[in-house]
Amino acid sequence: MTDAQIIYQRARQLSRIADEPGRTTRLFASPAMRAANRLVAGWMREAGLKTRLDAAGNLIGYYPGQTPNAKVLLLGSHLDTVRDAGAFDGPLGVLLAIACVAKLHQARRRLPFALEVIGFSDEEGVRYQTTYLGSKALIGKLTRRELQLRDADGVTLAKALAAFGGKPENLRSARKAARNLVGYLETHIEQGPVLEREHLSVGVVTAIAGQARARVTFQGEAGHAGTVPMALRRDALTAAAAWIQAVEQLARRTPGLMATVGQLQVGPGAGNVIPGQVQLSLDVRHARDGVRAVAWRRLQQLAQKIARQRHLRVQFKMMHSAAAVACAREFTQTLAQAVQKHQPRVLRLPSGAGHDAAVMAAITPVAMLFVRCRRGISHHPAESVRVADIAIALRVMTDFLVRQGRKHESA
Amino acid sequence: MTDAQIIYQRARQLSRIADEPGRTTRLFASPAMRAANRLVAGWMREAGLKTRLDAAGNLIGYYPGQTPNAKVLLLGSHLDTVRDAGAFDGPLGVLLAIACVAKLHQARRRLPFALEVIGFSDEEGVRYQTTYLGSKALIGKLTRRELQLRDADGVTLAKALAAFGGKPENLRSARKAARNLVGYLETHIEQGPVLEREHLSVGVVTAIAGQARARVTFQGEAGHAGTVPMALRRDALTAAAAWIQAVEQLARRTPGLMATVGQLQVGPGAGNVIPGQVQLSLDVRHARDGVRAVAWRRLQQLAQKIARQRHLRVQFKMMHSAAAVACAREFTQTLAQAVQKHQPRVLRLPSGAGHDAAVMAAITPVAMLFVRCRRGISHHPAESVRVADIAIALRVMTDFLVRQGRKHESA
Repeated sequence: MTDAQIIYQRARQLSRIADEPGRTTRLFASPAMRAANRLVAGWMREAGLKTRLDAAGNLIGYYPGQTPNAKVLLLGSHLDTVRDAGAFDGPLGVLLAIACVAKLHQARRRLPFALEVIGFSDEEGVRYQTTYLGSKALIGKLTRRELQLRDADGVTLAKALAAFGGKPENLRSARKAARNLVGYLETHIEQGPVLEREHLSVGVVTAIAGQARARVTFQGEAGHAGTVPMALRRDALTAAAAWIQAVEQLARRTPGLMATVGQLQVGPGAGNVIPGQVQLSLDVRHARDGVRAVAWRRLQQLAQKIARQRHLRVQFKMMHSAAAVACAREFTQTLAQAVQKHQPRVLRLPSGAGHDAAVMAAITPVAMLFVRCRRGISHHPAESVRVADIAIALRVMTDFLVRQGRKHESA
Repeated sequence: MTDAQIIYQRARQLSRIADEPGRTTRLFASPAMRAANRLVAGWMREAGLKTRLDAAGNLIGYYPGQTPNAKVLLLGSHLDTVRDAGAFDGPLGVLLAIACVAKLHQARRRLPFALEVIGFSDEEGVRYQTTYLGSKALIGKLTRRELQLRDADGVTLAKALAAFGGKPENLRSARKAARNLVGYLETHIEQGPVLEREHLSVGVVTAIAGQARARVTFQGEAGHAGTVPMALRRDALTAAAAWIQAVEQLARRTPGLMATVGQLQVGPGAGNVIPGQVQLSLDVRHARDGVRAVAWRRLQQLAQKIARQRHLRVQFKMMHSAAAVACAREFTQTLAQAVQKHQPRVLRLPSGAGHDAAVMAAITPVAMLFVRCRRGISHHPAESVRVADIAIALRVMTDFLVRQGRKHESA
């Protein structure tokens, strides 16, 4: 088997380690995560990495550099999953990193920096309805307040973490000192259709898009579907429909903007009753916060305008907002050079989804490599990556490490 | 108290007789219906009517005509309600009819036809998820198949009816012979805002609108809200929104057409997932079946066009269809003459909601009088009717009976 085939097989093997029978579901600090960590730790040691579990339950493998006090370049992604997930979202980045180290180890090669391969304990945040628990611990942002969160069974994060072998009482030990780090490289499936459409195996991420989420409520008046003439209606759903159209139009004519209404509830919700209320979700993302802010205000104004015209009320409530995170310029340039060597052309694209890299950017330069996935499908068992693309990604990552090593030496 | 005040008080009193504590809910053949029938039967007898329960559980009060074999003019409406109903939808028509007879009785006046006041046992159809059980029995259309229907507790209609005092084994006895009937007059709240807007107490119904209901499914492709560019999406909700807009536009520019999307479900229905599927309900009504049929085809075509443009699939499934029922011309003309006398002008309007009159029209001429209700609200505790409007309705109905009596004599 080729290295890429091994990575593919390992991802499939990992996907069978799950908290739910027959579905790839691995939640933070769960039995499946324990089993997954055990399996991955074995592969790490085989690759020459020295493994440990940090205070936040992250699996970390260490590969020394040329000198004992060498700085550390971090590689990795997450090992937890959403419910009923695919095999590649997360694990692919960890398995590729291990394979990179294995190649260096086999060649008895050391770099001017040490390498740490991290399998983050929680990126998806399913169990505690939060995100990035693993990487937040590394930047010192996992707080005591979060330790008191409870899962659906009432188990606190602190208790779950302690039972898992982490150290909730000493989270600080998981923290990385920025001065010791070279940077963080994360490889991840694209989770979108752009690389596939462009016929490219990998792409270089420019930034992780900023995001804002709102809950929007149109309040009209319910009425009998057979007795209230069209002209006298205050239908909350036709108002919402007009606005959904406007959201789509604005996003279509604003390059790089993604705007999505993913949830919509109609009240009272009977076939013969004019909708009196519609509540819906809005998700807006862009790699540039300024563009997103302008779009956000415009969408809010449009909702108000539509409501006014139709004699409805509208409530527009921001539920969440996260700034865009740019990938480090030089680090990403090195990655692009490596891509250039192994693929006809370099495609740069933003990441619309969040990643651990967005958190790690707070303390160290980050770069991200995207790998093509079939039809852009993720968070679904149909998630699929080609072995040939894994091979390209492996070559690019290895090349990146060598280039970065050279730059590090000449610096 | 005036007659109208008494009717108003009785409606309020009846609304407190319910199967659910604190909510006006009276289901077919339920304990509350038994109590309501007992109360109404008492008022009937007070008014000079001879009462009985027919085989289908309808409460019927008989007031003789001038001759023993006189034909019968039917008056009434239903005594069952939806869940958490108002006080007037149904009962108002029965109570007005009783008051008409009371006035005749007090004046010791007989008409050339007998009168029967009917309190139908089921119009709303909540318990057995059907409609018009009571009036269907009168026209001989309540079938054995329906007798086998089961309610939420598994009780068959036959069993419920037998326990209620009806005769499921002899439904035929409830049947009315067309040749013995003069016609059926039903007074009902408008359940719409037209009379209120026109500042009129009552209106004359021209027809009960035909109706068609569809279940429409837009099938696109789910995807990550942050990673699939707008141009590559197959969003089922934006497609549905475009169509909902089209539905509204068509209805607005087609006089008398009502088209409503009252239900809408989004799948998978997460804030960060592009909707892959939307299922929604369509309700289309018009007093002329031809207009409705043309609109229906157009809406279907528009759904297909929108789906085609957006590379989605759409399924358009008719769930129900009922032809429009015209009110009897002469009978309605008499009613309009009576209205003319008691109100500045006669407003003729179709009924967008279904009524027992639509069923009764199969065997006898029907006319319907609408009474203004506050803000068009019905099927809700806020349902409200003015005493002054009840007074006008009572005068109109009494006048109608006298006029009809004269016509009957001269015929």
